[in-house]
Amino acid sequence: MYVLHYAPDNASLIVRLALEDMRLPYRTVLVDRARREQDGAAYRRLNPAGLIPALETPAGPLSETGAILLWLAEEHGALAPAPGSPERGQFLRWLFFTANTLHADIRLFFYPDRHAGTGADVGAFADTTQARILRHLGLMEDLAAGRPDWLSPDAPSVLSWYVVTLIRWLALYPTGRAGWLDLTAFPALHTLAAAHEGRPAARKAALAEGLGDTIFTNPSYARPPEGSAT
Amino acid sequence: MYVLHYAPDNASLIVRLALEDMRLPYRTVLVDRARREQDGAAYRRLNPAGLIPALETPAGPLSETGAILLWLAEEHGALAPAPGSPERGQFLRWLFFTANTLHADIRLFFYPDRHAGTGADVGAFADTTQARILRHLGLMEDLAAGRPDWLSPDAPSVLSWYVVTLIRWLALYPTGRAGWLDLTAFPALHTLAAAHEGRPAARKAALAEGLGDTIFTNPSYARPPEGSAT
Repeated sequence: MYVLHYAPDNASLIVRLALEDMRLPYRTVLVDRARREQDGAAYRRLNPAGLIPALETPAGPLSETGAILLWLAEEHGALAPAPGSPERGQFLRWLFFTANTLHADIRLFFYPDRHAGTGADVGAFADTTQARILRHLGLMEDLAAGRPDWLSPDAPSVLSWYVVTLIRWLALYPTGRAGWLDLTAFPALHTLAAAHEGRPAARKAALAEGLGDTIFTNPSYARPPEGSAT
Repeated sequence: MYVLHYAPDNASLIVRLALEDMRLPYRTVLVDRARREQDGAAYRRLNPAGLIPALETPAGPLSETGAILLWLAEEHGALAPAPGSPERGQFLRWLFFTANTLHADIRLFFYPDRHAGTGADVGAFADTTQARILRHLGLMEDLAAGRPDWLSPDAPSVLSWYVVTLIRWLALYPTGRAGWLDLTAFPALHTLAAAHEGRPAARKAALAEGLGDTIFTNPSYARPPEGSAT
């Protein structure tokens, strides 16, 4: 059985959605962000980079959201084009883009004070990052409009769960800018988000982490039964 | 035959090293950075994100260095643990870490003026990013010291080519800080870099892009037969 080390509404949510959608057995262990457990020695043994999530597996502890998603898809033959299949290359391309561009920029954008530099202009840094995220969401919108099998409202993939969760966060964070993103300006992504939030995996994850109803198209801050999102 | 759209000493170098090491036939097309061809409509059709490289394949044009590397490894059964093999999860974990943390931060660090924000303190931003890169190189050092098959001086992988190329750039850029990184402080990475620069794939790539001899352990700026690195 997998063990997901999670904090509510953190990147662990994406892995939970994939585990739920694949109907895999797992249990969760809370990483208490209020106590900064992610910086403690015990957690660093699971993930030396100190980021949430970590997933304990028979192949050892894994980390990096994109890697966990891809590994689960390969192990269980689900939610992604298989290695060697015609769509594999394009799928990998956009999975990496999501991980190393969209998600990486979102990390900068949500914690600008940590990344802008001591004494730097945090607002200017956040503005620049926000503009880049918008531009890259435009690329995802173009992609989603073409409805490839792995980014489609008809059936989820590990990548579509990843993308709709990032969209959720962009509506909520950084808290001082909440509401800056108008998702209706990205109709294909809006359709994708709406289709995903009604699925059983989303309902189960929302219940477990206290996320409410319209978790992707019109999200509210988590009110989790345990732990804290920030 | 693959077509690699490249600029000398850009991320396309990593893909070239993998292609050479797998002994795959390919031809190259220069992306002329001096004319900003990567921003032109023709190149954007290959990679809408406008980053170099793009690789034309029978499965369409691919981009994102990590995705291209992984796809090539899967297609040709070379230079990476196969899907389903015991080491696959750890390999994917560190491939994603390299792409979305090390490489993403290096992009910020090399172009701080673009990322710090208008009127922001570019030096403070670069300092903060540099400190994070050093910390993450420490994680790669710990990993390399354990000599997993896919990050070993004995035999390359797509990940080891990726890591040693990032190390090369960190010695050269940003130009105002050239030499800031003392690679001997990371002995396992130094050993890795030294082993890789002597391999035939490195010699061929160095010749094609004008990189000189000790391209990973003691690099100098590219003097390419065509195009420009920046």
